[in-house]
Amino acid sequence: MAANSVSLSIPHTVAASKNLHSIQSRALIAPRTICFPLGSKTGDLSLSSKTVSMSRVRAGASQLMNEPVDEKRSITSPTVVQVDLGNRSYPIYIGAGLLDQSQLLQRHVHGKRVLVVTNERVAPLYLDKTVEALTRGNPNVTVETVILPDGEKFKDMDTLMKVFDKAIECRLDRRCTFVALGGGVIGDMCGYAAASYLRGVNFIQIPTTVMAQVDSSVGGKTGINHRLGKNMIGAFYQPQCVLVDTDTLNTLPDREMASGLAEVIKYGLIRDAEFFEWQEKNIEALLARDPAALAYAIKRSCENKADVVSQDEKESGLRATLNLGHTFGHAIETGFGYGEWLHGEAVAAGTVMAVDMSYRLGWIDDSIVERVNNILKRAKLPTTPPESMTVNMFKSIMAVDKKVADGLLRLILLKGPLGNCVFTGDYDREALDATLREFSKS
Amino acid sequence: MAANSVSLSIPHTVAASKNLHSIQSRALIAPRTICFPLGSKTGDLSLSSKTVSMSRVRAGASQLMNEPVDEKRSITSPTVVQVDLGNRSYPIYIGAGLLDQSQLLQRHVHGKRVLVVTNERVAPLYLDKTVEALTRGNPNVTVETVILPDGEKFKDMDTLMKVFDKAIECRLDRRCTFVALGGGVIGDMCGYAAASYLRGVNFIQIPTTVMAQVDSSVGGKTGINHRLGKNMIGAFYQPQCVLVDTDTLNTLPDREMASGLAEVIKYGLIRDAEFFEWQEKNIEALLARDPAALAYAIKRSCENKADVVSQDEKESGLRATLNLGHTFGHAIETGFGYGEWLHGEAVAAGTVMAVDMSYRLGWIDDSIVERVNNILKRAKLPTTPPESMTVNMFKSIMAVDKKVADGLLRLILLKGPLGNCVFTGDYDREALDATLREFSKS
Repeated sequence: MAANSVSLSIPHTVAASKNLHSIQSRALIAPRTICFPLGSKTGDLSLSSKTVSMSRVRAGASQLMNEPVDEKRSITSPTVVQVDLGNRSYPIYIGAGLLDQSQLLQRHVHGKRVLVVTNERVAPLYLDKTVEALTRGNPNVTVETVILPDGEKFKDMDTLMKVFDKAIECRLDRRCTFVALGGGVIGDMCGYAAASYLRGVNFIQIPTTVMAQVDSSVGGKTGINHRLGKNMIGAFYQPQCVLVDTDTLNTLPDREMASGLAEVIKYGLIRDAEFFEWQEKNIEALLARDPAALAYAIKRSCENKADVVSQDEKESGLRATLNLGHTFGHAIETGFGYGEWLHGEAVAAGTVMAVDMSYRLGWIDDSIVERVNNILKRAKLPTTPPESMTVNMFKSIMAVDKKVADGLLRLILLKGPLGNCVFTGDYDREALDATLREFSKS
Repeated sequence: MAANSVSLSIPHTVAASKNLHSIQSRALIAPRTICFPLGSKTGDLSLSSKTVSMSRVRAGASQLMNEPVDEKRSITSPTVVQVDLGNRSYPIYIGAGLLDQSQLLQRHVHGKRVLVVTNERVAPLYLDKTVEALTRGNPNVTVETVILPDGEKFKDMDTLMKVFDKAIECRLDRRCTFVALGGGVIGDMCGYAAASYLRGVNFIQIPTTVMAQVDSSVGGKTGINHRLGKNMIGAFYQPQCVLVDTDTLNTLPDREMASGLAEVIKYGLIRDAEFFEWQEKNIEALLARDPAALAYAIKRSCENKADVVSQDEKESGLRATLNLGHTFGHAIETGFGYGEWLHGEAVAAGTVMAVDMSYRLGWIDDSIVERVNNILKRAKLPTTPPESMTVNMFKSIMAVDKKVADGLLRLILLKGPLGNCVFTGDYDREALDATLREFSKS
């Protein structure tokens, strides 16, 4: 694994609260260690952990030039988090009003043709603004649009084919650029379409949900669901840039807002105890959409994600830790029906289950169990799976999880002080069974 | 572009004919130059050719250990052609009876689970042998099979989904290996399935047609057709190895045999005049399946392909030259109906059209036109498109060709002495129109 580094910018916004400010003033992410066993190539897994120093994130300034586009708005420089992947590196721009700064997008558009992939809910809100950002002062660029139905249950091959149909009907060639405008479903589908169309064209992520802004738009995981399993078909394919305009959260439904916070909380639990402690003090501010709190949470989440992805793009070990609660959560999404629960809702319940199992194994103390339950409840997220989930449903769906290796299910579990986790298949099966029984009616 | 090198082995078979032997005894591929304009990033294309020295292929010996598996057969060491792509490098094994040498396959199988993707025609002939090769002396490996309908018209998303269905139903995990057993359609589909399943699993190519052995199994182009265009959806995804057992050609229908020769002839035309001259002397021996002639043609084709792919994996320039005749050919395949003509048949007619256009442009002399027509006719390949193809059909389908850039159709055309070509959008449109009129009824 290459020792890539991640450059981060100084936060551009003066923090609203003293508390937040004091955290921003410290080293953004302090050096820390986490333990996880790297999967061996032979399929054997052991607890012989490798200690990995996670001090590769460094603070640094990155300023971008602005163009005055609307005198009524105060234009701010975006915060920039760099995802360092050699010749596939790219920036994440984070800030308010970024869709008004057309040069940010336009510098990453390849060729003269753009296909915006969005959905029926997002299109009326932000499609015009996005087309304007792509074309302002740039008459050579033409923009096509495909508007998909909204929701996880449409993240399938039939819906994906509509993107290919549109691209081919419009005769888009290899020098075109796909733009994903929407939440995680749109980002995953547009990314996989871009990876596959003509064997690969450029694409840009414009995430419009917290879930997508803090997690799914960053790192190049793209794909669609199969009726038997979530995200089973896809590609690792990196975008040219991620543009996070935090203004798009103004129209986000409360339930979607909470869903995204499940992933924010995840970063704290697996690798950033200081961030988790900040969340415990600011979770209501996040739910209330305090702009400074949201900007900070998004930035710090992207920093964590970028750091992990830079070290392990293809998920040979470390990156799997980002899936805390996801194996249980994906089983809920697949078993309960795609779209019945939002992804973050399923991840929240799954996180409680992973934490319960970690406690049963004696790997964490009960204060962590309590703190996880408390913060998720305060975030208005579920802490138990739907009642219809049975032990057998969990087992059957989890058996096709992507983290199964040679028949052995590997899980992300917390171990040690807050902020530490392991990715392992070496655990007492009885603890898993006990957790499944505890959280299932039958 | 990295200056990769390709290592080649000394031919392992003593040639049957003196003529063939004399060619094999010379430097395998002499240093030569070809001209082609590299496409610029801005979409501008010019005739300012860049001369590229193609002397990177060097001869060298590569011997593999054998295990005695059948005393009645004389076991030969395979010829090995290496495709040099950094950490994605892999060998092409070429020889008779290679499916009896199980260690060749087994060394490239990752994990304990294998999915063989094949079709209804190939399965009765070689599936048992392949399973035996994968499992002999290796009881830990289990093999699943998916048998697809045969033919280009099934190279679509619906058929591809059957591969995913099978893989998920069998609960194959990321450490499995997909094996493509069949011709170009199977190789392309299995490769794309491997690229996409769980965002990428290992795969092995066992091509059983000349077309697949000399071209499509090498270089990592995978994908499926869309009703509006051939190979529009896919991925660049390299196999772990390519195993060419020339014994599988014993059961190949004559029409398939001829189809594969279209690609063999292509290599001579675009970059290897000496190989073309050899073909002119040996085309009947190839059609008659002379083992030594076939082994030599396959090896030399793979050497050419490996050399080009090593220099330009993602087709930013040089690799496009492998598509001589393919833009016209794909239009025939798409317009006339997938599977009506075999791929090589369409490529043969397309090659005649590209050569005709090159001549109209004054880029080649008439002796080349005549030699191309002659060799294709001797190979029992068509030299004109189907009568139902019209000028408008050609134009409409060619407009979505993957080599269109910012609306400009780039073509591979011959230019200069035999063995030289250009990849360019800078040609007189009237020459293209004249060629289309010449070869279409309306």
